Parts: sequence; structure tokens; C-alpha cells
Amino acid sequence: MHQTVPLYLRMLRLLRDEGAISRAELADKLAVPRPRLLAELERLVATGYVAEAGMAASRGGRRSTLVELNPHLRFAAVDLGASSIDVEVTNGRLEPVTAYAEPADIRTGPRAILQRVNELLAKAKSDGAYERLDAIGIGVPGPVSFRDGVPVSPPIMPGWDRFPVREFLTREHGCPAVVDNDVNIMAIGERHGGVAHSVDDFLFVKIGTGIGCGIHLFGEVYRGTDGCAGDIGHIQVDSHGPVCSCGNVGCLEAMFSGAALAREAAAAARSGASPALAERLASSGAVTARDVAEGASEGDITCIKLIRDGGRRLGGVLASLVSFANPSMIVIGGGLAQLGHILLAEIRSVVYRRSLPLATGNLPVVLSELGPRAGVTGAAVLASDVAFEQAAS
Amino acid sequence: MHQTVPLYLRMLRLLRDEGAISRAELADKLAVPRPRLLAELERLVATGYVAEAGMAASRGGRRSTLVELNPHLRFAAVDLGASSIDVEVTNGRLEPVTAYAEPADIRTGPRAILQRVNELLAKAKSDGAYERLDAIGIGVPGPVSFRDGVPVSPPIMPGWDRFPVREFLTREHGCPAVVDNDVNIMAIGERHGGVAHSVDDFLFVKIGTGIGCGIHLFGEVYRGTDGCAGDIGHIQVDSHGPVCSCGNVGCLEAMFSGAALAREAAAAARSGASPALAERLASSGAVTARDVAEGASEGDITCIKLIRDGGRRLGGVLASLVSFANPSMIVIGGGLAQLGHILLAEIRSVVYRRSLPLATGNLPVVLSELGPRAGVTGAAVLASDVAFEQAAS
Repeated sequence: MHQTVPLYLRMLRLLRDEGAISRAELADKLAVPRPRLLAELERLVATGYVAEAGMAASRGGRRSTLVELNPHLRFAAVDLGASSIDVEVTNGRLEPVTAYAEPADIRTGPRAILQRVNELLAKAKSDGAYERLDAIGIGVPGPVSFRDGVPVSPPIMPGWDRFPVREFLTREHGCPAVVDNDVNIMAIGERHGGVAHSVDDFLFVKIGTGIGCGIHLFGEVYRGTDGCAGDIGHIQVDSHGPVCSCGNVGCLEAMFSGAALAREAAAAARSGASPALAERLASSGAVTARDVAEGASEGDITCIKLIRDGGRRLGGVLASLVSFANPSMIVIGGGLAQLGHILLAEIRSVVYRRSLPLATGNLPVVLSELGPRAGVTGAAVLASDVAFEQAAS
Repeated sequence: MHQTVPLYLRMLRLLRDEGAISRAELADKLAVPRPRLLAELERLVATGYVAEAGMAASRGGRRSTLVELNPHLRFAAVDLGASSIDVEVTNGRLEPVTAYAEPADIRTGPRAILQRVNELLAKAKSDGAYERLDAIGIGVPGPVSFRDGVPVSPPIMPGWDRFPVREFLTREHGCPAVVDNDVNIMAIGERHGGVAHSVDDFLFVKIGTGIGCGIHLFGEVYRGTDGCAGDIGHIQVDSHGPVCSCGNVGCLEAMFSGAALAREAAAAARSGASPALAERLASSGAVTARDVAEGASEGDITCIKLIRDGGRRLGGVLASLVSFANPSMIVIGGGLAQLGHILLAEIRSVVYRRSLPLATGNLPVVLSELGPRAGVTGAAVLASDVAFEQAAS
């Protein structure tokens, strides 16, 4: 059974999501008696989480003072990809104060990567983005034991298995930290500030180097028994398909992902099937998913076909998941979301044709609104949640 | 966000699940201060839900009196299948006081079927099973709007769409009623008194005339946005497969279900491929899934192959769902669970081979313990929950 959300957490989250607010309005929105609210508020002001913020506009009677989150609150949000580091420092309202993004190979191992994260955070500090951090949220591209704050058997992260990521960051920065899977933080981000705003049951499908799915049910992330729920990249879509990095054959991500698409694009360039890709291969020596997207936008038939074939395969898997989970929304994000509306049209066509009409009657299948910022946004949400929980004491 | 479970509900559920208990032990188990517990208990005794039950064994100090659910509490539990009605009347601890089972065709429509349910309940009453019912729980073989208490576009239940089942029963029996999908109640039953006892995240797969899945996540039934979560019978397993009753091709239940198996068994009997099935067809004019199970137990190769082929297809779908949902357990129930260990072995083999090792490391795939009683047991749990909620007032 779920825990109740205590009042102080509900207050802090409301101030995070809606900004400065009068005491009267706060009591209304939280539906708690005013004396109880005021007592709790006083405690939060004393602990430094909440601050006075001037006078509210009159509601007829005595003017009430506004309260807001302490403007000095700072969260660090980190999104580690297979080949990238994104770091943001945000204020209490999760607005970015500063941000850095750079390429990095996750396979260089936890010490090198987390050391680089520390350097970027040190740079933010010396640039005046913060004096001290209140919490850190970090997403990694593999399964995570959320409770223990460690990656668990992550296939594409050699050296990271059970590395104490949370402990490492907590010790370095003297604040709480929280570790989650990269797709989960994207789903959390999209629910906080994107297209899935306030949707309780939805799937966030990330199509990048690999394919994964963030699952939001009953209004929260569902992580599964071992922290690996949403691992849809290794669902078999063709029993005669190519061998996948996992050792099985015909996995979804062996057929359609950044890596698979680049491979197929190179073949199409070499065989002469696609003039657009052949040209790009000749000029830069390699072709990527981005080249396929550009080729498609120029009307190259082979590029369009590659995207549609991929969309059809992903759509087949999503149709099964819609039958199973009956979600309210499917959000498509990650690097390959740049394939855009051709991809979306194909996915929709398969999902709407294959799933139970009752489940698809009101089911939007849409692109991520936050795009590359979905991950850091979700990491900031997690950081704020863990910081706010400390306010109990 | 989830609601908290209020104290009175936790008390009533504990008395339901554990029976007579001393006040002291009750306070311990619920971890509430004794004065608060005693006040709440007094209220529940006054409203007639709870009764005194003699003295407890001494714990050293003053002997404490036991409390238990009122022995006159009665719940009706109804499990409607495609071709059957099961009715139980239980006491407050959900032990059956009386039970009836009979064949019935769900397609005769809601008035005829529910009228027959009423007749069976009237019979139970005249036999002395109850004086008045405290609540009714009923499961139907199709999607249900749990909130509204009505079936919603159920494919195999003509005439039932939006029929006010809950209202019909409430009016007739003057007590609250609750309506759910048949597979959901089986999952609830199995968690209450079967192999999934106290497991929070599991899948209950029913293989009968059709195929469906009850989903338990975070310790509760997950019903999906439109009440049709778990509709896995229409997941496509072969794009060149036979046409399904839903109009699509190659759905799981068109390839493996009671109906599909009977069809394939008849073909095998006629072609001479299976002596065991040919013999049964000759003697009774038809063959069913049960004949396949019997043939397999006699060593008939074709029967064994039919079961293994079906298990392989179902296993493929379950492997995908394990990758997606990372459950703690998979329970196989429904009429075709009689295919037993050959079926189970094949399902396990596919799931363990195809899903992420992290997700299958500790994943039991087991047969239902409650068998045909899973549905009525879950319906009784739902009935007791709705009755107990009334105790608030």
C-alpha cells in the first residue's frame, strides 16, 4: 500500500510548482484548516525551506503576505546518456540557473564520468550559480535499484554495476542524492513540465542509441521488482531478425534504434538505393539517424521507408503494451524523436489498428514537449523531492 | 496520488484476514496508540461490524477480551464466466457458507443472467445461509468501468454494454455492490488466499475460452484508463495467423485458447495425426481442451505438441510483458491451466530465455493455487472492502 503524502511535502511541492502564493490561497488549495497550515508553515520558515515574499493583492479583507520557496534553494540535475553528460543547476522552482552539456562515453566508467560531473558542478559554483546544493538528482542509462541508489547489471555501462553513485555524490557535495534510470527521469520531467502534465497513467518511450520506456501509473513512476521495468528494447519483434547486443535475435532495438538506423542507412547509401544518403556518406564518411531524418524531409523515398519500417515495428510493440496497460497517453522522446511526424504517423497507424478500440478511443500518441531537457527536468524533480523529504526533521 | 487507508478499514481488513484477536495484539499489529484504537473499536462495535469474542490467553498481565468481525456479516460473491455462473455466500472472514455453480450462457443477456443470480441467492437465503447481505461482489468476462459499476463494450457479452449491473444488484438486495472484470477478481483472490499471497507486483494470466491478464501493481489492481488493462488476448503473435473474433489476424487467443485448442484438436483427430483425439472424437462427437490434456497425459505426441506450441506462443507474449512490467510473479489460471506442467514448462522456457536476466532471476511462473475458486474469492474480497468502507459513517 502507498504512503500518504504528508502536509509539509504537499506544501513544498505546491510552492515549487506554482511559485509565490498567499497563506489564504495555500490553505484553500491544500484543503487544510488554517491553524494547522500556519503552524506547519512557521516550521518550514524556521528550517529555511520557505521565505516571506511580500504582500499579496487584496482579496477584500486584510492583505495577506505571500510565501515562496527560499530563493537560495539549489538543486543539481544530471542526465547521463550513453554518450553525453547534461548538467543543470536549478532554483527551488526548478528553473535553470545554469546548464552544461558535453559528449562523454559512459563506458569510461563511473569514476571518470562522475569526476567530470563534479568538475562541471564546481564550475557552476565558481560561476556563482550556487553556494551549496540542497540535493542532486541523476539519471543513468541502465537499470537502477532506486532504493539502494546504484545501477544494477546495466548492459551498456561496464564498470558501473552496483557502483555507489548516490553515496559518491552525497559525500562529495554534502547533500542528499537520488539515482534513477534515464527513461524514468524523462517521464517524470515530461509529467512535471511537458505534454504529460498531470496525466496519471502514461508511457514515455525513448528512442535513442537504444529503446526504453518510462512507466507512470497511479500518478507515480513504476520501476518494477528489480528496477528494470520498461526495458522494451529487448522485446522480440522478428524471430528471424538480426542478433542483438543482448545475445537474442530480433529484439526491437536491434531492428530500430539509433544504431540500427545508422547501419541500415549506411547499407542504403552504399547500395545506391538512397541518393540523399549516398551523398552524405561521400561527404562526411558516415551516416547517422539525423541524415535519415534530413533525407526524409527532402523527400528521399528510401529514408522515408526506413523511418516507416521502424515506426511499424515500434508501433507493433506499443500496440501490445496498450492492450496490456491501457494508458492515457504515449509520449515519444529521445534522439530519434527528430524523425518526427513520419515516425509518429506510422506508430499511430499501427497502434490504432491493432489495439482494442476501447483502449485507443482517447489515446494521444505525441512527441515529447521538453525534448532534450526532459531528463534534467525529471532529475531536478527527484532532487527537490528528496530535499523536501528532509524538511520533516 | 494514492489515498491513505484509514484506520477503521485497516482494522476491519485485519479482522477479516486473521480472525479473532485481542485488543492489545490489534494495537501492536496496526502500530497505533491504544487509546485511538479503543475509541475506533468502540465505534465499530456500536455500528455492528465488530463483536466481542471471549477472553484471550493471558500475556502475563490482565487478560484481554478478543474482538472479531460480527459473525452475522454475509457477503455474496459472484463469478460470471462466458458459460458459467459461480455464486458463494461467505461470512465476514470470507469463508464459504454456501456455494452454487451452474452452466449459463453470458450471451443470454444481463436480465436473464442476473435474474438467475438473484434466484440462486434467494435459494441460499431460504437455505439459511444469510438473513441479509452486507455487500455483493461480481466479476464479468469483459472490460468494466469500475467507477460506474458497468461493463464497457464487452466483446463477448452482447446486450451488457453499460448495463447498470451494480445498481441492479444494489436495488434488489439493499446492499452495496461492486463490479469488476473476471480476471481482476481472480488476481485479487489469488493474492488474498492463494499463491500470490502478499505479493505486490504480479500478473495473473487466465487461459480459458479467451485469454486475459489481471495486473497487480503497488499492491493493488491496476485497471487502466478505460478499465481494459490486461487485455492480452488480442496481442498479435503471428502476422500470418488466423483471423480472430476481433477482426485482426494472429491474436494470441486466436492461436491459443480453449476455442483455438478445440479447433486444432478436431483437425488433429480427423487427420489421424492423434490416435488419442481420434478415439475421443469418435466416441463423443467432439473434442475439447480437456481431451488434449488427457491425451497428453497418456503420452499422445500430437497432444503434447499442441500444448507446447500454445505455451510457446503465450510464453512469447509473457516474455514481452516481463520486460515491460518486471513483475515479482506470474500466476497461470483459468480452465486451460489443467494443461498443467507441460504448459508451464514451455512458458517458463520461453520467458527465461527471452527476458532480461535481471527480470527473471527471481521470477516464479506458477499455477494458480485456488483454481476455479480464485474468482469468487476475489469477488468476496471486493464485497468486503465495499462493505467495510460503509463503516466510516
